[in-house]
Amino acid sequence: MEELATRLEIEDLQENLEAVQGLLARHKQVEGLVARQESPRRELMEQLVQKLHLVELRTRLDKLHSADIAYVLEALPLNERLLVWHLVKAERDGEILLEVSDAVRETLIASMDSDELVAIAETLETDELADLAPDLPKEVLADVVQSLTAEERAQLRAALSFEEGSVGALMDFDMVTVRDDVTLEAVTRYLRRMEELPDHTDQLFVIDRARKLLGTLPLARLIVSDLELDVSRVMVPEAVKLHPDDSAQDAASAFERYDLVSAPVVDAFGALVGRLTVNSVVDHIQESSSETRLAEAGLREEEDIFAPVWNSFKNRWAWLAINLVTAFIASRVIGAFEGSIEKLVALAALMPIVAGIGGNSGNQTITMIVRAIALGQIQGPYWRKLLSKEIGVALLNGLVWGGLLGVIAFVLYSNVALGAVMTLAMTLNLVLAALMGVAVPYMQARFGKDPAVGSSVIITAFTDSGGFFIFLGLATLFLV
Amino acid sequence: MEELATRLEIEDLQENLEAVQGLLARHKQVEGLVARQESPRRELMEQLVQKLHLVELRTRLDKLHSADIAYVLEALPLNERLLVWHLVKAERDGEILLEVSDAVRETLIASMDSDELVAIAETLETDELADLAPDLPKEVLADVVQSLTAEERAQLRAALSFEEGSVGALMDFDMVTVRDDVTLEAVTRYLRRMEELPDHTDQLFVIDRARKLLGTLPLARLIVSDLELDVSRVMVPEAVKLHPDDSAQDAASAFERYDLVSAPVVDAFGALVGRLTVNSVVDHIQESSSETRLAEAGLREEEDIFAPVWNSFKNRWAWLAINLVTAFIASRVIGAFEGSIEKLVALAALMPIVAGIGGNSGNQTITMIVRAIALGQIQGPYWRKLLSKEIGVALLNGLVWGGLLGVIAFVLYSNVALGAVMTLAMTLNLVLAALMGVAVPYMQARFGKDPAVGSSVIITAFTDSGGFFIFLGLATLFLV
Repeated sequence: MEELATRLEIEDLQENLEAVQGLLARHKQVEGLVARQESPRRELMEQLVQKLHLVELRTRLDKLHSADIAYVLEALPLNERLLVWHLVKAERDGEILLEVSDAVRETLIASMDSDELVAIAETLETDELADLAPDLPKEVLADVVQSLTAEERAQLRAALSFEEGSVGALMDFDMVTVRDDVTLEAVTRYLRRMEELPDHTDQLFVIDRARKLLGTLPLARLIVSDLELDVSRVMVPEAVKLHPDDSAQDAASAFERYDLVSAPVVDAFGALVGRLTVNSVVDHIQESSSETRLAEAGLREEEDIFAPVWNSFKNRWAWLAINLVTAFIASRVIGAFEGSIEKLVALAALMPIVAGIGGNSGNQTITMIVRAIALGQIQGPYWRKLLSKEIGVALLNGLVWGGLLGVIAFVLYSNVALGAVMTLAMTLNLVLAALMGVAVPYMQARFGKDPAVGSSVIITAFTDSGGFFIFLGLATLFLV
Repeated sequence: MEELATRLEIEDLQENLEAVQGLLARHKQVEGLVARQESPRRELMEQLVQKLHLVELRTRLDKLHSADIAYVLEALPLNERLLVWHLVKAERDGEILLEVSDAVRETLIASMDSDELVAIAETLETDELADLAPDLPKEVLADVVQSLTAEERAQLRAALSFEEGSVGALMDFDMVTVRDDVTLEAVTRYLRRMEELPDHTDQLFVIDRARKLLGTLPLARLIVSDLELDVSRVMVPEAVKLHPDDSAQDAASAFERYDLVSAPVVDAFGALVGRLTVNSVVDHIQESSSETRLAEAGLREEEDIFAPVWNSFKNRWAWLAINLVTAFIASRVIGAFEGSIEKLVALAALMPIVAGIGGNSGNQTITMIVRAIALGQIQGPYWRKLLSKEIGVALLNGLVWGGLLGVIAFVLYSNVALGAVMTLAMTLNLVLAALMGVAVPYMQARFGKDPAVGSSVIITAFTDSGGFFIFLGLATLFLV
């Protein structure tokens, strides 16, 4: 909390960044001057001025919360970023490394030697160390593990063994436990002996001799209750319990539904192994929603916006390659009808409309259904209901937009049959989009895949190739 | 908390839904039997059985947390939903209405008469009432306002006056305040007199006579401190403060960065007016990320998945209309080159590839930049740096994918010039995509619009029409 001392208003964030940038710019300017000047005395003076800027910068950084320094680091190009990084006090490096994005963390870790990294890692708690471990060089990690106690080593091993996206990977070990057969008076005395409670301690966990979780004792209840009472009388006996292998997403929706601040994590025998806090949950929600959005646009991971061209290329190429394949297939569908297009060139101009609107409509269907799946709202018996509704919407859309486009095609090319084919093709492609918009997420959910990722490419592939095929096929049958 | 009593494991959620569905199905079955039977005695028996199912259902519902009932309601088709809704105890209706999605809330409110709604609204706190107000019939709201105290009316008026997406709209008034010149002993006595503390009370707010916020007193600190001390000695004098007109998004990132559970909201004079809690923040994050994703796919609002076809049509038509216009423009671009296509029909088959890959690449650029803008990472001086990086990536992509497609076009159509035009057109369209991928969010941010919404349509419009124009234009120049 003491770090927050100077952070009064949230608007300061932007101001801080601008101040750092200003100092960096002045520092750079002086550096430029120094390079151009020959006179040694002048040089000395400039160096002094430059030093002053760095001192001012360091003073400013010292006053910032670690999360705010992380924010500044992410917004600076590589050179400036490393300059700021090396001005930050070493004991805060660990916290900051935990706050920055993966891409930026890599650049920071790459700039440090093993000794520095070992020193940083030793300042972290085991659950934090587990978060950082994948990015640390192996020899650094080995050195750090050596310095841990046996208990910490066991915790680290456990934390590393949980899959990403599980409660185990998000939980921490900072819980305060009490026994059920003591009085609140004793609990209060016990707490007073601690200098401060771990962050997000809204409740104490009540356990028996075997560490089995018996209930929780909310601080708010402890404070308003009679101190003579036993813990067992005051505790909440049955609260939400999590397991380390529960999915983090389920845990997040439990936190959201039941408005939790912390929740106990128990093993298969009901013994307390850790706790999950709302701040980890919020981080997880933000991270996973951002990952989904990046994945939907075909970015493999978050990009450091100042990354070199080559890194960006590597991050993006797979998606473009997949789309190239689907576009190529659509192109070959058109190629099969080149004879028809040669005879009636209007087809070439109209076909992208049929394909495009199908894709848009299919994406609407899929977005709605993926969301409903994620919320667990679609159950077995309702899939058919849903499908018939979506086909109804598609037919209505076909009538309205297909009809409109049929008229436009007729007006443009004075060809009634062409207008009719346009309307029919639009309607059929919209029905195809509705079918696939339900079928694709259904199959993905069936086979245990995350329907949020990739469904948009799949549906667009169908509505493109399908749209071209339906429109050009109908045209070949009825017009050419 | 007592409502949670039966909720031990998060897996129960699915189970509850299935149990309710099972009971509903049995209820329906019996209803069907009754309709087919004539014998009055048999009928009576069936009615009894049916009643039993409803009793069992009601018992089950009574044990569920309001949020879990909301979940069940959202997952049921309209008829079943209303049946369950009317089985729920009236005093919980208010809480449940607050939990369900907007679309489902409308269906529930539509099924109730004014008296019921007034009774529900009177059970709510003013900040909750403000959330529900937009969905209530006017006469109901007027009736409810009549029953409020003057202070509550002022709170309601204030809560309704804040814009959606501001801290004011999310805050509540359930804070516990203490004065700075009393002892912790007195504070503890004061708290003991309350039966329970409001949810998410992790800290008390310290104010002076004029309600000016002086600091906060975390419960965790109150518990471990010497009771003889004055509040002013123990309080955290400077904590994160919010203003009612701060954006909820900024507040959410403050909660995320500083790991807050609650934060005080103060007016321009520093007087305490409310508090923001992490559960409201989590709800806001979830809601706004879901809204963005729906908006990106052109869904105007969340859809009740069991809504009638006509409602879905209304929710989706605007987007399809916009896309129809952009597709029509692209179609007219192609129309302008019909002469060239007639002479070289291969152009018709190849042109969608150029347009499609441009669109995909542009969307990658825009997704990355929109994200960086949202995180506040892109500052004035860095736009140009970013643009040149994106153009670099585009040129590299053009070289790789354009080159590959050039070779494929050459192989397919044995036409070297066609292959060269393909490569050149791909590269130019990728550069266009990079330009627009940076320019569109830049302009949107400049004019204060949310760059997350609509940028995908805009960029696709450019890369489609632009791609067709570049490819067909080059072909007309060099090939025909």
